[in-house]
Amino acid sequence: MSSISSTANFFDRPETKLLVPPLNFAMVTSGIYRSGHPLPINFPFLEKLKLKTIIYLGEHDLRSVNVEWASRNGIKIFHFRMENCKLPFVENDPEAIAAALQVVVDSRNFPVLMHSNKGKHRVGVLVGAMRKLLQKWSFASIFDEYGQFAAGKEDSDIEFIEIFNSDLQYDPKYAPPWLR
Amino acid sequence: MSSISSTANFFDRPETKLLVPPLNFAMVTSGIYRSGHPLPINFPFLEKLKLKTIIYLGEHDLRSVNVEWASRNGIKIFHFRMENCKLPFVENDPEAIAAALQVVVDSRNFPVLMHSNKGKHRVGVLVGAMRKLLQKWSFASIFDEYGQFAAGKEDSDIEFIEIFNSDLQYDPKYAPPWLR
Repeated sequence: MSSISSTANFFDRPETKLLVPPLNFAMVTSGIYRSGHPLPINFPFLEKLKLKTIIYLGEHDLRSVNVEWASRNGIKIFHFRMENCKLPFVENDPEAIAAALQVVVDSRNFPVLMHSNKGKHRVGVLVGAMRKLLQKWSFASIFDEYGQFAAGKEDSDIEFIEIFNSDLQYDPKYAPPWLR
Repeated sequence: MSSISSTANFFDRPETKLLVPPLNFAMVTSGIYRSGHPLPINFPFLEKLKLKTIIYLGEHDLRSVNVEWASRNGIKIFHFRMENCKLPFVENDPEAIAAALQVVVDSRNFPVLMHSNKGKHRVGVLVGAMRKLLQKWSFASIFDEYGQFAAGKEDSDIEFIEIFNSDLQYDPKYAPPWLR
């Protein structure tokens, strides 16, 4: 910093328009972001992330405006059907979670945005499973993070994260750095 | 994923010990993490991040165990004195925030961990100032993020973020990708 030869001021930057991240947007780890369902107002923000992949955990088809935007930007979409967890009738689907994790252990898919509708419960379960299985976080830290996004903890989700397991395999050649 | 030649199972990995991130740990953006004050129990987790720099916003000296750990791991510490914001007597210090931002616009310092004691208010103000000035986030998104970490919003902090400005300069050669 002491050797700044040519400097630039922030206000010189061509783009001064405000950027609007999607609801509950956050960076999960290198190469991975999480959020709620993106709306067109969020597209300029998301384009700056240069996404390669979107993982959508949702009951219904993704909106066509999102599908078209992803296609225009060369973004591959993985849609894993997962219903909103409504106890005692609907439970989180371990196969959908395992399939989504299979996408994130391959860094050729990075950067990835994983989203559900609100970015709270379903994405919270996916991030929790990832913290536990791939990143070996302690449960206390996993539940804290889950609770930061989910307003009011959903006990069934937390139970799911705790018992979730999978014999997922990965190719070390394409493993993300946080898995090595 | 269809072409996995040699696979590895997660459970084969040598390290199976649980990792404990510091209080309120999160990734802010590429190259930057935030948290509360790290304790020795968090050191194995932090060592995986290969940190180059720590920014500490705090009133008192950093604990010697942290200073020694940072030194052993070749981590440079920037300590910007900032008191806990206690209205109406103590206000956030715009000079400390500007000095901290000056560290994060130089990617040679990456990866950076920015921490205060609880990782809520002071670090929340720094992240908010960064979102506003460097990343052009909308206020609604900035305040949402601030509120996720700070239990109960601190109006004075939010006011500070809104009015904060700085004629910070940066060297484009070392600017992080999210600033370009």
